[in-house]
Amino acid sequence: MTNRGRIFVISGPSGVGKGTVVGQVLKNVDNIYLSVSATTRKIREGEKEGVNYFFKTKKEFQEMIDSGQFLEWAEFAGDFYGSPKFNINNYLSCSKDVILEIEIQGAKQIREKCPDSILIFLAPPSFEALEERLIKRQTESVEKVKIRLKKAKEEMNETKLFHYLVVNDDLKEAVDNVLGIIRAERCRITNVK
Amino acid sequence: MTNRGRIFVISGPSGVGKGTVVGQVLKNVDNIYLSVSATTRKIREGEKEGVNYFFKTKKEFQEMIDSGQFLEWAEFAGDFYGSPKFNINNYLSCSKDVILEIEIQGAKQIREKCPDSILIFLAPPSFEALEERLIKRQTESVEKVKIRLKKAKEEMNETKLFHYLVVNDDLKEAVDNVLGIIRAERCRITNVK
Repeated sequence: MTNRGRIFVISGPSGVGKGTVVGQVLKNVDNIYLSVSATTRKIREGEKEGVNYFFKTKKEFQEMIDSGQFLEWAEFAGDFYGSPKFNINNYLSCSKDVILEIEIQGAKQIREKCPDSILIFLAPPSFEALEERLIKRQTESVEKVKIRLKKAKEEMNETKLFHYLVVNDDLKEAVDNVLGIIRAERCRITNVK
Repeated sequence: MTNRGRIFVISGPSGVGKGTVVGQVLKNVDNIYLSVSATTRKIREGEKEGVNYFFKTKKEFQEMIDSGQFLEWAEFAGDFYGSPKFNINNYLSCSKDVILEIEIQGAKQIREKCPDSILIFLAPPSFEALEERLIKRQTESVEKVKIRLKKAKEEMNETKLFHYLVVNDDLKEAVDNVLGIIRAERCRITNVK
């Protein structure tokens, strides 16, 4: 067994509540750190630079791609998202676990580049519920919401790439399930086939 | 994905606290049932027929072996232990999960016969702690305690057959880890390689 930290990837369709679940998870477990992503999307009300995201222009983001600074990156609904390598590797080498809250295309890259990563798909209880949440959020135009919903339907076919599926119907239940997965993976005997 | 229930096997050296951990786990999670084992060992103070074990004579136990009534059985420190098939299959076919609290030889049999089972090894924080517990328990002769300790040392080499290792140092922590494993396995996407 290695003492290197583990990567937990939390992914799922837009509006499923990844940020809320991850926030609650981080409050309830030790020795795990959030990898703050970089993005070109506009900052939303209440979000903070360096806390929720590193907000970048498209030019800055492209420069980070070109200089190999991302562990994964993806374009999603017209914006770019990526996980900078700095910090992640530091945490892992100090036996600390890392959570990546990322889009599904990014999760696929992590699965290939870091095959020991644990991939959790956060799913909505239904599409109707997802639509309602995206509209309620009022952070985007109707058109962008439509793009995200269409994408979400496609993405539900990608769950087979993940190790775990957590339905975010009741928030506490979803958070407890993710916490359970973290506990379980920390007890896992890695040399079992 | 199937709707059939899962088998969770909790095993580990004598005196590690399997019974206590399992008792606490059952109080804190729904839809999971304990498979009551049959044994030829003597009933201990506070134990009840049909609750802790089905207590059998060696002749009765042998008849159950001969008529194929066990999912697994093993001899351990001079006594026989086995998991009767009745009930287990009923639970599984009704999508209910089952806990087997069994000896390590039995866990090996379950791993072969039911490869989808989830095997949890409950380990003592140290051998000294284990010795202290076995002596404190005062349920057996010094000689039997010695046999159990020798066996326990051998058994620690068997952990690689298990999926999870939970150290029973702090009881609450051990119980929370087993509960986490149950939650995680219920979220697992079974067709992932």
